Amino acid sequence: MKRIFEIDPWKIVTHEFNPEDKRLQESMTSIGNEYMGMRGMFEENYSGDTHQGIYLGGVWYPDKTRVGWWKNGYPEYFGKVPNAIDFVSVDIKINGESIDLAKDSFSDFELCLDMKRGVLDRSFIVEKDGHKIKVTSERFVSIAFKELYANKLTFTNLSDEPVKIEVQSLINADVYNEDSNYGEQFWGVIDKSVADKSGRLVGKTAENNFGTPRFTVEMAMSHETDLKAIQSENEEKYVANNFEGSIQPDQTVSFEKRVIVTTSRDYDTVDALDKATNDLMNKAGEQTYDQLADAQANAWAERWEKSDITIDGDEAAQQGIRFNLFQLFSTYYGNDARLNIGPKGFTGEKYGGATYWDTEAFCLPVYLGTSDPEVARNLLLYRYNQLDGAHHNAQQQGLKGALYPMVTFNGIECHNEWEITFEEIHRNSDIAYAIYNYTKTTGDKSYVLNEGSEVLVEIARFWADRVHYSERNGQYMIHGVTGADEYENNVDNNWYTNVTAKWELDYTAQIAKEISDEQAKKLGITDEEVSKWQEIADKMYLPEDKELGIFVQHDGFLDKDITLDENNNPINKIPADELPINQHWSWDKILRSPYVKQADVLQAMWYFMDDFTEEQKKRNFDFYEPLTVHESSLSASIYAIMAADLKYEEKSVELYERTARLDLDNYNNDTVDGLHITAMSGGWLAIVEGFAGMRVNDGELQFKPFVPKAWNGYNFRLTFRGRLLEVKVAKDNTEIKLIKGEPLTVKLNGKEIEVK
Amino acid sequence: MKRIFEIDPWKIVTHEFNPEDKRLQESMTSIGNEYMGMRGMFEENYSGDTHQGIYLGGVWYPDKTRVGWWKNGYPEYFGKVPNAIDFVSVDIKINGESIDLAKDSFSDFELCLDMKRGVLDRSFIVEKDGHKIKVTSERFVSIAFKELYANKLTFTNLSDEPVKIEVQSLINADVYNEDSNYGEQFWGVIDKSVADKSGRLVGKTAENNFGTPRFTVEMAMSHETDLKAIQSENEEKYVANNFEGSIQPDQTVSFEKRVIVTTSRDYDTVDALDKATNDLMNKAGEQTYDQLADAQANAWAERWEKSDITIDGDEAAQQGIRFNLFQLFSTYYGNDARLNIGPKGFTGEKYGGATYWDTEAFCLPVYLGTSDPEVARNLLLYRYNQLDGAHHNAQQQGLKGALYPMVTFNGIECHNEWEITFEEIHRNSDIAYAIYNYTKTTGDKSYVLNEGSEVLVEIARFWADRVHYSERNGQYMIHGVTGADEYENNVDNNWYTNVTAKWELDYTAQIAKEISDEQAKKLGITDEEVSKWQEIADKMYLPEDKELGIFVQHDGFLDKDITLDENNNPINKIPADELPINQHWSWDKILRSPYVKQADVLQAMWYFMDDFTEEQKKRNFDFYEPLTVHESSLSASIYAIMAADLKYEEKSVELYERTARLDLDNYNNDTVDGLHITAMSGGWLAIVEGFAGMRVNDGELQFKPFVPKAWNGYNFRLTFRGRLLEVKVAKDNTEIKLIKGEPLTVKLNGKEIEVK
Repeated sequence: MKRIFEIDPWKIVTHEFNPEDKRLQESMTSIGNEYMGMRGMFEENYSGDTHQGIYLGGVWYPDKTRVGWWKNGYPEYFGKVPNAIDFVSVDIKINGESIDLAKDSFSDFELCLDMKRGVLDRSFIVEKDGHKIKVTSERFVSIAFKELYANKLTFTNLSDEPVKIEVQSLINADVYNEDSNYGEQFWGVIDKSVADKSGRLVGKTAENNFGTPRFTVEMAMSHETDLKAIQSENEEKYVANNFEGSIQPDQTVSFEKRVIVTTSRDYDTVDALDKATNDLMNKAGEQTYDQLADAQANAWAERWEKSDITIDGDEAAQQGIRFNLFQLFSTYYGNDARLNIGPKGFTGEKYGGATYWDTEAFCLPVYLGTSDPEVARNLLLYRYNQLDGAHHNAQQQGLKGALYPMVTFNGIECHNEWEITFEEIHRNSDIAYAIYNYTKTTGDKSYVLNEGSEVLVEIARFWADRVHYSERNGQYMIHGVTGADEYENNVDNNWYTNVTAKWELDYTAQIAKEISDEQAKKLGITDEEVSKWQEIADKMYLPEDKELGIFVQHDGFLDKDITLDENNNPINKIPADELPINQHWSWDKILRSPYVKQADVLQAMWYFMDDFTEEQKKRNFDFYEPLTVHESSLSASIYAIMAADLKYEEKSVELYERTARLDLDNYNNDTVDGLHITAMSGGWLAIVEGFAGMRVNDGELQFKPFVPKAWNGYNFRLTFRGRLLEVKVAKDNTEIKLIKGEPLTVKLNGKEIEVK
Repeated sequence: MKRIFEIDPWKIVTHEFNPEDKRLQESMTSIGNEYMGMRGMFEENYSGDTHQGIYLGGVWYPDKTRVGWWKNGYPEYFGKVPNAIDFVSVDIKINGESIDLAKDSFSDFELCLDMKRGVLDRSFIVEKDGHKIKVTSERFVSIAFKELYANKLTFTNLSDEPVKIEVQSLINADVYNEDSNYGEQFWGVIDKSVADKSGRLVGKTAENNFGTPRFTVEMAMSHETDLKAIQSENEEKYVANNFEGSIQPDQTVSFEKRVIVTTSRDYDTVDALDKATNDLMNKAGEQTYDQLADAQANAWAERWEKSDITIDGDEAAQQGIRFNLFQLFSTYYGNDARLNIGPKGFTGEKYGGATYWDTEAFCLPVYLGTSDPEVARNLLLYRYNQLDGAHHNAQQQGLKGALYPMVTFNGIECHNEWEITFEEIHRNSDIAYAIYNYTKTTGDKSYVLNEGSEVLVEIARFWADRVHYSERNGQYMIHGVTGADEYENNVDNNWYTNVTAKWELDYTAQIAKEISDEQAKKLGITDEEVSKWQEIADKMYLPEDKELGIFVQHDGFLDKDITLDENNNPINKIPADELPINQHWSWDKILRSPYVKQADVLQAMWYFMDDFTEEQKKRNFDFYEPLTVHESSLSASIYAIMAADLKYEEKSVELYERTARLDLDNYNNDTVDGLHITAMSGGWLAIVEGFAGMRVNDGELQFKPFVPKAWNGYNFRLTFRGRLLEVKVAKDNTEIKLIKGEPLTVKLNGKEIEVK
């Protein structure tokens, strides 16, 4: 745990700069607009350790994965997000010497991510050649104008003499991925040009052996500044505009850089890219920097209007939940159904910007409660549009139906651990559950009866082929899986996998009866097939220990080295200096230990919360929670909800903090690599589903709220079936206000009330 | 199954050349002398598909393995055998055009590996420029002179006109590995020189990031020929001597190439290499090619004298067993305790020329029965000398004691599949068993009481830390392993692993009482520690199914999709066109299926043959054999022995053929990659331990022989405790003759007889 930013309700702000924490700082001050995004690296030259990272939504590269041994069914390639062509760097020289905070003396440092306005601010006073110069920087990627990146720098001469300033502003294709296998580069340059104050560079991703489309991108820059343009550069891998001038004592000069980024995702040819880029640059040129920045602030204000959560009495918690929503929305806001939510969004290379099951299991509920249903529906359509890839994945294993990928850009599996790719197949049910959840929450059946039914049926066909009948047991089993708890691999009968597969077969059998004859015909469903699904669901083996009163995570789990206390709850303890275990223990030790990475049995209990008795929830929570190390960022939120449901208030609040401030406090000592974007859903889930006890049952919105001891109260906005509600939870009462839309009946603490 | 060579008792010979079978042919005609070896590729230019492969014993490269995700405890590097600098290639031009059997018309092709003499012969008549030229080639790597490679070519002009001949003889460092990750090369050139008829090149393996020593090698060539030496070449990556001449009608000209190969394994500096190479070349120069070839033939005759097996009435079987012994001895004959037996020897890249448990489990018994005890002892010492590496491997997993590597060159694990490297840990017991087997067979206790006890104790310490106590079961368990059957990964309580670990702890506790006080002190053994080993051994959980009367391969195995017949034996069948399953099924399907790659439960029953009842052996054989696909080359031999023991003669003979002719008949459709060298032990094991029922019990040699129906009889030589015996098994009687050494008593069919 490490906290390097100050507590502030709307800002991620620090007045200190410690080079050792540079990467952590960069991760935390990432910005994005779903179309593109970047880490919080400095614009100017920095010779110390840094992770320069800029990423473009949906632009990826299929890298080689066949190093070492390869077996049938292993994915052909490993999908990576290439670090984009650098359009951020600006070299600033004072009297001929580059500003470089790794070497220079400086004071009055401030770095601030303003979440209300969606901008990243920075300022400092640097001493160069005996002169003090104040530098400020503000930058953003616009959510009002997706192709636009803007950066405004100012330089104030605090010394008694004039200084000379030179600025070199770049678009540079000479970039690397830290995760490239052999130091190879992913971008080639196919065209470029420069003028006095502007330049453009067209790049193309490297060739690949797998036949996936290569991406062409264009980056164009223009500048507004008091400085004088001098000779531009047009080199092999970059273009640069150069400026110079002198700054008088007390004078401030400003330098604005605007960049337009277009890609072959939207335009077919280089000509079309050029034309679009030019048009967009002209459009951007119609507004001043301040107007562009205001548009950004207004667009963010609209988002906050729908989704803000205020916490009275705990600023750290307040900052946490806003950071969660800010970073989640910076990564995805449903404007492009071809995009999805990478586990690190635009904040790092790990997880390659690809799509995981995180989206459906953890993020979708947040979008259902904070934005228009189209956003969630676009997430569902993303999977529908990738059905071909999912068919391919199943075929690769010799199986029928659709196997959605663990990691993907195009529907085809692109991760490279077999124990994940063809074993962590619970994801198929999670994706089905998202359809159910969308339908249940929005009341809109049009998706499930059309596109959704196709997805459900193909997943059911996968399950029907993937299970096997154990003659010995007279039940269907699912061998060789990895559950949500990735600290166990290749286990048999993971309860979570089995119970969700059973549910999926059941639900699909039911939906099969509701779809139109035309749709049923299109899908080729027969009564015989539906009965088979039903039979498998009915005879699915679900490991359970009656004595302990728990569902058993998988066969053999209870044979592990587990010591029980007098209440039959585990008392195994890990020394604090061995946490997180994934950084201290060998994988061998982790696999064999009883420690659980993230909610597994509990994940399914959360999905089907009201299907279990209080006693069942309690027994399982009490058994698994002490064994859970929450080393997946996706764990604490689910346990927080379960704890809240069980009235374990203290535990629930502890877990809320862990999820909401996971990155802000670097709980798992891995935020240097980037933020846990998909886990940014956790704060919202913990407050809304946890503390406020929000559920949707039979179309009815329900709440059973409480206020954590340390808080005075909390308010949150909620979108529900065409309404915008505000829920104000105080210690003594809860008030639900209708901000927009038709009146409705909600159940509060078991009693139905009318909200007008 | 595919047979491309003719049946012959002493030769691997064919008169056909099919380019589609080139690689298969190359594998089968590999030659080696434990110091170095090569595939049977042509010397002259060949533009079709070929796998040029020359390998030097003990010369390796630690390649990168960190592609994709990496976890604590994964090995740092992936060990590979670099394809050696090419000293074999000779380009031959007739009237200015290279001979190239991929393009040229030719007739009278013969390719013959002469196992009696240890040479590879080839001849053909090629048509070039309208002229017919007969070409013959003979080559060998000398077992009498390890650094020597010799090749004699002759050219006879069968046409009516003189032809011009040019020969370019190379040492060429411009070679690649087919398994290089990014097409990178493993050899750099550090020195070279040429004279008229000779040349040398000194190469060094590429730098690596892991601090393992780089290898320097020198290759020097000299030539004897009727042709005239012309301008030599000294290029960046190669040196070449060039010769030309004309051949009159009916004239034969000859061309001899001798190569000396020295390495930094034997000489510290380049100067020392140079000097040694020079001296060795001079030494070789003292003999004619024919003398050198005779020395090779004589040395092979000595080996055959000790170990030959003759089969009367089945030439295919005869050829199989000789091919087994020839290839095994070509790979290892105990002359260098730093070397070991790579699963593909010098015949291909796969398995990287590294050491596997194959050596101890399958090859050691063969050397014990066919050569002096020093050979087996050198194999044991190899492991003793690598104890440091084994300690390192255990530490990498956070465990005590020694974990011998699955794959290694230096004792440190260098494979890159976690499910193998830290899970297939039964190898530790196999290595301990080899010590027991050596001691039991030779009667020599000096190894086990000294070096051996150190190995045993460190392995026992590993087991004691690697097991866990299951409170629930009151027994010790071993979770997270891969058994000998690699078609199951990360299973719990593999019976083979558990029973051999139990045995190892037991045996070590016993040996701990027999070693000297000094040795005990050196090893730091306490009574408490020994009691702990004993306690774990006593309380080891061994999965068993009383109803079926079988040991269960691992927990959950019987929950698989297994259909039993009325005798409780599996009847699952795989369609013939899906075999081998590893080439047709996804890894997912293989892992979940009940099919067994190789002897697993049966492997341990073979080790401790006389500890099990007839009924136990029968029940387990009957249960597991139908499920076993023998897709490891190491499987059929063990089943053949077990079948013989159970008097399943027909089955035993079928399995003998499968093991002895595995590569000759390409049973598993993978011999193109190279021969299954460690499985070359299989024919011997099947005949000697199987058909002849050879056992050593309490120091007594025992036999219970039978003759397979299709055979008239068989004879084999056997080394045993200072004697050389000949065992002649006929249909009606068995005769045991003492060839060398003192008389002894052996048990034949339960009766003791005196052999004089």
